[in-house]
Amino acid sequence: MYEPLTEQKAVALAIRLGLFQEDALLSCQEIGDGNLNLVFRIVNERTNDSIIIKQALPYAKVVGESWPLTLKRATIESQALRTFASYVPQYVPKVYYSDETLAITVMEDLSHLQIARRGLIEGKTFPKLSEHIGEFVAKTAFYTSDFGMNQQQKKKLAQQFTNPELCKITEDLVFTDPFFDHDTNSFETELRADVEQLWQDDELKREAAKLKRLFLTKADVLLHGDLHTGSIFASDDDTKVIDPEFAFYGPIGFDLGQFFANLLLNALSRHESEREPLFTHIEKTWDVFVRTFTTCWQESNEPYARVSFVLDDIVSDALVEAIGFAGCEVIRRTIGLAHVADLDELPLERRLEAKRHALRLGRELIVQREHLPIHAIKRLVQQTAHVNS
Amino acid sequence: MYEPLTEQKAVALAIRLGLFQEDALLSCQEIGDGNLNLVFRIVNERTNDSIIIKQALPYAKVVGESWPLTLKRATIESQALRTFASYVPQYVPKVYYSDETLAITVMEDLSHLQIARRGLIEGKTFPKLSEHIGEFVAKTAFYTSDFGMNQQQKKKLAQQFTNPELCKITEDLVFTDPFFDHDTNSFETELRADVEQLWQDDELKREAAKLKRLFLTKADVLLHGDLHTGSIFASDDDTKVIDPEFAFYGPIGFDLGQFFANLLLNALSRHESEREPLFTHIEKTWDVFVRTFTTCWQESNEPYARVSFVLDDIVSDALVEAIGFAGCEVIRRTIGLAHVADLDELPLERRLEAKRHALRLGRELIVQREHLPIHAIKRLVQQTAHVNS
Repeated sequence: MYEPLTEQKAVALAIRLGLFQEDALLSCQEIGDGNLNLVFRIVNERTNDSIIIKQALPYAKVVGESWPLTLKRATIESQALRTFASYVPQYVPKVYYSDETLAITVMEDLSHLQIARRGLIEGKTFPKLSEHIGEFVAKTAFYTSDFGMNQQQKKKLAQQFTNPELCKITEDLVFTDPFFDHDTNSFETELRADVEQLWQDDELKREAAKLKRLFLTKADVLLHGDLHTGSIFASDDDTKVIDPEFAFYGPIGFDLGQFFANLLLNALSRHESEREPLFTHIEKTWDVFVRTFTTCWQESNEPYARVSFVLDDIVSDALVEAIGFAGCEVIRRTIGLAHVADLDELPLERRLEAKRHALRLGRELIVQREHLPIHAIKRLVQQTAHVNS
Repeated sequence: MYEPLTEQKAVALAIRLGLFQEDALLSCQEIGDGNLNLVFRIVNERTNDSIIIKQALPYAKVVGESWPLTLKRATIESQALRTFASYVPQYVPKVYYSDETLAITVMEDLSHLQIARRGLIEGKTFPKLSEHIGEFVAKTAFYTSDFGMNQQQKKKLAQQFTNPELCKITEDLVFTDPFFDHDTNSFETELRADVEQLWQDDELKREAAKLKRLFLTKADVLLHGDLHTGSIFASDDDTKVIDPEFAFYGPIGFDLGQFFANLLLNALSRHESEREPLFTHIEKTWDVFVRTFTTCWQESNEPYARVSFVLDDIVSDALVEAIGFAGCEVIRRTIGLAHVADLDELPLERRLEAKRHALRLGRELIVQREHLPIHAIKRLVQQTAHVNS
């Protein structure tokens, strides 16, 4: 039966699993933010070896509100980490153990790395970030797609990763609420005129509807489902993707789009002269994605993989999707329920300026998505810096 | 444990289920074609009341070959019939009982109707056919889509209708093999030059790849999955859709496309002056589909359902898909493994002419699908009647 762990019980579990030597001197600390999960860090004080025990809580707290949330997400998370590890073990934490009833995943401790969002806010560059994420997305996408996996097995994997409750959160908070006058939205009073303009923008909403429909219907590849910079641990050399509890079979461009959007939001939080590393990351992620996906493509058993332009069609669709999804993410992180620290930590005047810029940028990413090569994103950021520019 | 029924056991089952009065005088006949299923017809000789007991066989026989085929398809079939019945009970046989282990569905006997393909070959018109199929497809599509059903429930329904084995048959026989030199293909020696031209047609294959990918990835609505004219019982007044063992969540245009294609194949089997009823059926099916879908649309709880042009986008996508899928079906029924009696029963010279016409028509349906309003299909049939016309 499910019960929340205490620090004592977490240690007892670690011992029972034989994850430490017998003479270990174990200490344990709960280091989660308490909104969704308990996170216990257990350290052997003699050797400094450590592990993480993550346990899902049966509710979510966001901005003071609390609603029930399925424990099944812990199983999705551990299964996704294991699936990803079979293709790119270097980019995910090792999973040592999982327990469906207790909603527990026991895994590698990554405390020596930093959450990428925090590092980027501090001005760090993480020079390998784009190379690693480009490879992570390309390989997990290819090998779980109909081109890299037996197509019948893929259907069973998609069935296993059916994730209605977590998808519902994205459907509402990313694709719907920010585009309508909904009470989950949250933004500075000063932005009301800008936001109301967006709610009345039928051209934008028609395109957002297409992107939502792709998210609802396109069972293309196994996605992380929440690949923002807060789901990535990084250092100068290493990159680890964590927290895939939103994993499901969705459109190939979604993870890329979320990642691009969060790099763009960080760029908007900076002075114009300091944005280049973010644009470089976006372009390099895309280049590595295309190069890696193209290399994997040679392994495909699908007869159509050898037909001219089929690969090109899939890659250009992926970019159109990624740019459109990035636009939705930029908008929802600006006026929706869940914000990003990159913008929210700015002083009011700069924050308002950055958020107005984000709304204009998000709109154009969505509306122009079919006509934007990857290097045009930087230009679009410049063009949307001011109204009517 | 599974075992094939005998006529005696079928009667015993009918009695056990209490489907006939106690004084019934029951006779039983196996009337299936023996390729995929046993079909027992049980009649009360006193009252002429009758039922059908259909049992899946654990193998499929097609053109002399035999391969194992999952019994799970009987469960898919009875669940699909029940799901369809909740929206359009008038267009499916009543299901009285089903047994997963025995792979049995006990249902309404429709012997008073005729298989539509056979009737069309005989020159019958079935005046209500298009109105009924248009409504059947519109309502089953809408109410199982993200616009007509709770989006979380829809994901669970899609999970339940995961159907890898039967989808594999369509993936191979409709979307792949006919476009490549594959040994399942079957066509008259005289057609070899035409078929080789098709296999070398990279523009066509690039578009067929997109259609196959839609079939593989777009979990849009619950489809019948095999809606050709042999899956429809009809009379002047009634229409009943049978055999949904291929049911799965797929692209909204697929069922329409299969239906259109089989009407077109019947048209090609006729003299030019006798084709009008088929074109009328195609256009009317589409009109009724659009009208019914649009009426249902008003019930949608999806916020984007009230945004301008969202319905128009979905309807025009559905037509593009339907026309493309129709092209694939026309081609595969001409040179693939499973043919249609409409063409195969023609004398050789007329058959070759009709099949060459079908190959040209199928190609243009696929390649031009984004630019064909529904009434252009008739013109396209005329334009492809001869080479280079």
